[in-house]
Formats: sequence, structure tokens, C-alpha cells
Amino acid sequence: MTNSTAQDIAKAAKVAFEESQLTSSDERIKALHEIKNALELNKAEILRANEEDLVAAKQEVDAGRMSESLLKRLDLNKGDKWDSMLQGVLDVANLPDPTGSVTYASELDDELELYRVSCPIGVLLVIFEARPEVVVNIASLAIKSGNAAILKGGKESNRTASLLSKAISAGLAKTALPSTYVQTIQTRAEVSSLLELDQYIDLVIPRGSNSLVRNIQNSTRIPVMGHADGLCSVYLDEHADLEKSVRIAVDSKTDYPSACNSAETLILHDRVVRSIWPSVANALLAANVKLLCDPKSLEALKESTPHSKFQTHVFPSEPSSYTTEHLDLTISVVVVPSLSAAIQWINSHSSHHTDSIVTESQETASAFCRGVDSAGTFVNASTRFADGFRYGFGTEVGISTGRIHARGPVGLEGLVIYKYMLRSKAQSGHVVGEFGTGKKQYKHNKISATTVPF
Amino acid sequence: MTNSTAQDIAKAAKVAFEESQLTSSDERIKALHEIKNALELNKAEILRANEEDLVAAKQEVDAGRMSESLLKRLDLNKGDKWDSMLQGVLDVANLPDPTGSVTYASELDDELELYRVSCPIGVLLVIFEARPEVVVNIASLAIKSGNAAILKGGKESNRTASLLSKAISAGLAKTALPSTYVQTIQTRAEVSSLLELDQYIDLVIPRGSNSLVRNIQNSTRIPVMGHADGLCSVYLDEHADLEKSVRIAVDSKTDYPSACNSAETLILHDRVVRSIWPSVANALLAANVKLLCDPKSLEALKESTPHSKFQTHVFPSEPSSYTTEHLDLTISVVVVPSLSAAIQWINSHSSHHTDSIVTESQETASAFCRGVDSAGTFVNASTRFADGFRYGFGTEVGISTGRIHARGPVGLEGLVIYKYMLRSKAQSGHVVGEFGTGKKQYKHNKISATTVPF
Repeated sequence: MTNSTAQDIAKAAKVAFEESQLTSSDERIKALHEIKNALELNKAEILRANEEDLVAAKQEVDAGRMSESLLKRLDLNKGDKWDSMLQGVLDVANLPDPTGSVTYASELDDELELYRVSCPIGVLLVIFEARPEVVVNIASLAIKSGNAAILKGGKESNRTASLLSKAISAGLAKTALPSTYVQTIQTRAEVSSLLELDQYIDLVIPRGSNSLVRNIQNSTRIPVMGHADGLCSVYLDEHADLEKSVRIAVDSKTDYPSACNSAETLILHDRVVRSIWPSVANALLAANVKLLCDPKSLEALKESTPHSKFQTHVFPSEPSSYTTEHLDLTISVVVVPSLSAAIQWINSHSSHHTDSIVTESQETASAFCRGVDSAGTFVNASTRFADGFRYGFGTEVGISTGRIHARGPVGLEGLVIYKYMLRSKAQSGHVVGEFGTGKKQYKHNKISATTVPF
Repeated sequence: MTNSTAQDIAKAAKVAFEESQLTSSDERIKALHEIKNALELNKAEILRANEEDLVAAKQEVDAGRMSESLLKRLDLNKGDKWDSMLQGVLDVANLPDPTGSVTYASELDDELELYRVSCPIGVLLVIFEARPEVVVNIASLAIKSGNAAILKGGKESNRTASLLSKAISAGLAKTALPSTYVQTIQTRAEVSSLLELDQYIDLVIPRGSNSLVRNIQNSTRIPVMGHADGLCSVYLDEHADLEKSVRIAVDSKTDYPSACNSAETLILHDRVVRSIWPSVANALLAANVKLLCDPKSLEALKESTPHSKFQTHVFPSEPSSYTTEHLDLTISVVVVPSLSAAIQWINSHSSHHTDSIVTESQETASAFCRGVDSAGTFVNASTRFADGFRYGFGTEVGISTGRIHARGPVGLEGLVIYKYMLRSKAQSGHVVGEFGTGKKQYKHNKISATTVPF
């Protein structure tokens, strides 16, 4: 792809975005229904393309160039995946409109009213992994929030994604929205060219590994909303309850080990190493979890009645154990002398995603929640709760590990910003020259409004 | 400066930020009062250093290497500048705490409560121009919002800034906040090294030219909240009122021409070129404004009774006239055939800062406010209202021309983000394994709360 093609795509997206600003929210909802219809209409053709992608991917797996799990995620016809993809489009259509809400309103002077109104960001460039249904998910979220989007999936799903994208355009064509409102690109070279075009693209959303996110941050002036690794931890405080410790450690680690919100590190207060830790370790071992222990936690297990899996599942940790996202049934264990040491440990080792404390002390819980600099700070609850659906957002763009704009699970709200609308109703309009020392003063009276009255 | 020194500064800032998370809001307010006292105590010494900066700058001006206006902005002893700088510290101290506010709260299950709580971003790197008092302004805003800050002013004000910074540290030393909470650096080389350190620095705020902002965006992975040029416009619609047109065009251009919120372009609907435009032009010419006109607007002035300044102040425009931030008594004029052409013109030429329409039509006003993709869209009001103080924010970090996190005038709210705190009060804590098909369902009951109850 030449730069000029990237330029065309990006410019078309910006034009589509700008044209859509006067399109009603109802039209965007209609678009989602039309897209669902177009997908249904083309189901057979799309699933055929998906089979071709699967056959090609199978060859890659057989040749050892692709993982089995990647292959599984490619399959659009597995279980209820197709139906839940379509249901997802309708679910997003039914969510409240994230645009047009007034979040600040003030009467600056008689007949001079200021409104801060939520509105779309502009053109989104979303880069994600193999799962082809993400094309449909993200397109739905972009349309619902009034943003134009350029989507790039994994190359393994190109045939499928290309037809999904065609169905999306066909759906859009039945509405007042431009068919270039959502575009799909196929290659990394296209991404590189697009990352140069900050005059057209307003936000890049990479969903993938830390290195993907950092590579993109390194190569663009466009703001990046990163969705990177999750190095989450569970801290068993000196005031921890035994049953809660066991349940939360086991759930945080084993409920879905390859998710970014599963725990990778267990932090033990010195005082629980001999009381609570052996029971927690036994429960983890019973769930087939491998334990990478620092000297103190290892020593305590040796001294207690050893579990049958001690020889096969308990190992000394290395420094790198604590900065590794295991993504499997492995957890690193470390002992700290105090709450403040635990907080420091987390702040310097975690990916600032989600960290949980088990404690019966209100005061300790409060200090932990404020001192730990992560998107989620939990008390007596599994790290696995860090999720847009569980938080009640209905759907999720992803989980942001950045610290501006949107942090943690990002719902539709993360795809909007605001603009200020100011209206004078005065006879001669409003000019600032009338205000100042010895002249008019600003009133700044709060206005109660949820929508803009003009 | 070596990279390791930059590393030390950045790391010290991060440590200071993390340590400060358990410090109360009252302590931050106390810090602001102590800083004000330290500044008062060291007034004579600081003003002496400022005089040295002024003498050195005067030599630069005489040698033609610095502008007279830059020299003026350096002077900390001019008028009530010193007193208003100190008053500004107290004003910020008195603003409501932007942290600790709950913006979303939900009961996910019985005894499982989620709170989204505003909190500081982390470590800010703020880069700004010559005016030395900005060191104190920004330090106050950072402290009030709970962020650590590294500040870099213009090299012309180094002597002054260094002593202001010393007073800030002296003030901080009288509180529980670390004295490295606010640090000042002196050279561009230090900035370059710091821009590499995204593990310690969370947000860069450059206040200056477009090229400064773009250079910084090009050289860092750290998010940038840009405060760049203002290419604002006033659009006189076909339904514009004559008196409002004159007042708003003149105020937008002449009230303070070097401000980023002053108008650089006047856009005329075809239908007002012969009715309203000549009066507006005469008023602008009477205010000594130079008019750079497109053929249609120029022709109309030739045909009307020519103003005495026509020969000296009216010129044909060039394409570049419409992308130039004049920052003086010059305005570019262009005629468009329709509202939608005006919107397109603005979206493709403006810097998305602030644009104003003069119209008596509600419908047109509404379309303009939604169709123009700028941080401020105004109706019958001067572009000069785009300002944090006028909007009622009490103070201003700057005016963001970015489109994520904070847009338009940025108050203390722009220096915070949020984290999610989740607390289980249940007997056995909460794990996600208990939820799902045939098991517990999420409740998502809204909780009314403005602060976190733990």
C-alpha cells in the first residue's frame, strides 16, 4: 500500500466522521440493525471464508508457525459465537447514547449559557488480534458512539474480516451514514502509513501485547489508548481472613488464567506466612497451580505438612518471575514486612491494572485502595471482577492500562470527549470587552441541564 | 545532563507521587500556604534574580535575538504581577479538591460495591514559555490535584525560576509532602532525556507553538496534552444580525489579538456580503484591523463606499492567509455559499479551538454547534470567551487542542483521572466463580454516593 492510499482511507474516514455529525442518534441505531441484517443475509458466504481462513491457519499450526489457541479463536462457527456476535450488535444498539450529555452547564452572564456536551472523538484506528468477530464488536461501538473507524485485525482472519467488513458497509449503505464510516485494512504496512496521519486520525486503540502497544506509541504522534498486559496481584494482609484468602487467591488465579485480570503474583504479609499461607498454597496446589516462591514462602511450605504436589509444583522464584505475565496456572509468591512494603512492591512491579487486598481492617483496606496506583484496587474480592460487563458497562472496548482519558475497563464512555457550546440570547450578543474591573462581572450560576436546549 | 540524572529526577518524582497518595487533601492545602509564605520571605532575593534575567534579556533584545514582548513577560515586578501570583496560590488552595469524587457507583451484588473515584494522574512534565510566574501557577495546580510535577520554563527566566523553585521546595519541606514533589529543570537536553522515561512520567503538557507540541509528540511515548495554536473563526450567517455581527467580529479580533482565542478568520455567507459585510469591514478598519480578503469580499468593499483606510488596510488574501495565526490586528476573510460550506471550511482550516456563528436562526445555530468539530462552538458570542476563568473553572492549566482526556480550557479536572475501588463486605468475600449461567447474576444497582465510604 502506498502512502497515498493510506491518505485516501484516512481522509475518507475524517470526511465520513464530519458528515455524520448532523446525523441523528436514531440513524446510528438504525445502522446497527441494518448491519445485523446484512450479516445474517451473508452468513453462508462469511462462514465459507472463515473456513478458508481456518484451513490456512491449520497448515500454519501443523508447520509449527501458529499456536493451537490462536486457531481456536479464529473459528466464527464455534458454539454460539455467530449468534452472540449478532446479539452483541443489538445489545450495543440498545445501550444509552453516550453523546449529547451535558456534564457541566453554567450561566456566565444573563442570557449567556455555557454547556459542556459529550461528543465523539473523531476517527479511531483500532488494531487487534485474530478473533474476527472483534471487527463487528468494535464497529458497533464506534457507530454507537458516533466515531468513524479504521479497523485492522490479525492477518490470519483476513478473508473473514474482509467479508464482515463488506456486510458492515452494506448495512451502512441503507442509512444516511457514509459507507466509509467503518473501513477495514489488511496489512501492517497500511498501519504504519496511517500512524503518520495525525491530521485525520484522532485516537489509536491497540489491543494486544505490551510490545505492540509500545511499538505503536513509539511510531505515532496520535494519542494511543493502550490495552496491554495485566500483571495483577493479590495481597494477603496481616489482618486477612483465612477463608477469604483461599477463595480469592484461587479464583483470581484459576478462574480464567489467560485473561489479563487474573492474578500473577501473591503477596504475603510476614505475619500470615505461617498461619494462612500453607492453606492457601494447598488450595492452589489442589487446583494444579505451580508456585514460584521467594525463600521465606518456600521455607514455610517446607516446614508445614507438605502437599503431595510439593515436588512437582513448588519452585524457587527468580526476579523475573515477578514481572512475567504467566497467563497459565502459575503464580509468583513474595513475602513483605508491612502494608507499605506491599504497596511499594505493587507500584514498582505491577502493570497498574488491578490489585486486591484480603484484610479485615477497614483502615488497611482504605490505605491500600489509595496507595496502590492501579486502575482497580479491590478489597476482599477477586481481581477477575475487573471487566466492563461485570462493572455494568454493558460492553467493553477493552481494559486501558493508560492513565489519561479512560482507565481500567473502557465502555462507550471511553469513546467520547466533549465540546463546549456557548449561546448568547442577549439583544446585542455577547463580547468580552463588556466584562472586567468597573464593568460587568461573570455570574457563574450553575444550570441544571442534561441536554443542550438548542 | 546525563541520562542517569534525568532518571534520578524522574524516579524521585514518581516516588514522591506514590508517597503522597496517603497524604490528606488538607496537607496539600497547607503546602500551598507554606509556599506562599516562602515566596514572600524570599521576595527580595527572587526579584533580584529576576532583574538579572531582565538585564541579560535586554542585551538579547538589543542584539536583535529576542522580542520586546518576551522581555516584558519576563518582568515579575511589573504592576501587580507579584501580588497576583501570590493571590493565585491562595485561590488554587481554595478551589474544591478535584480528587476523591465518585463519578460512578454500582452495587454489583449484595455486599459488593464498585466506586469510580477521581485521583491524580501521576507525574506531570510541564514545558512552557518565558513567563516565570507560570512555575508557581503550575506548581500550585499540580499540588492541589495531587500530581508530582517536573517543570521546564524558558531559558531566559532560569535565574528567577530557579529561586521560585527553591521557595516551592522550602514550602513543601514544612509539610508531609516530599520536597521532590515539584522539581524544576533548566535545559532542553534534560527535557529530551525525560521524554524517554515513560515508566516514571505519565503526562507531558507543552504550552507553546504548534511546532513545539508536534516536536514533543514526535519524540515520546508519553501521552501529550497539547496547548497549541488557535485558528479561531467568526462566521456571519445569512440570518446574522448586523449589530451582533459588528460587535462580535470586532471583539473577537481586537480585544486581545495575541491570545489564542482571538479570531483569525471571518467567514461570510454569500447573502451578507453586500448587506452586513461592509459595516463589519468599516468597524474593523476603524479599529485599525488589516483585512486579507478573497475576491468576493474584496469586490464588495470596492463597490460600497470605501473606508479611508481601504488603501492601507485592505489586501487580497492568499491561500496561506487562512492557515496563519496572525496574532495581531489582521484578519482573513472568505465568502462561502452555505452553512454546510462554512462548516466544511472551518473543519478543514481551523485548529479546532473555538469558532463562533452569528445568526438569528435557532436551527442554523444548532447545526453549526454540532457540525463544527471544535472544542468551542459559540452562538452570537465572541471567541474570546474560550477561557478557563470565564468558563468558571477558577484557574486554567491551558487550553487543550487535543481531543482526548481534556478539550478546550482545562481546569483542575484536566489533571485528574480515576481508579475503580471495589469492596466486598460479604462473609466469605467475593469471587467471580459464583456468577454465571445457573448461578448468581450481577445486580448493577446504582449507588448514590459522592465519596467512597471506606
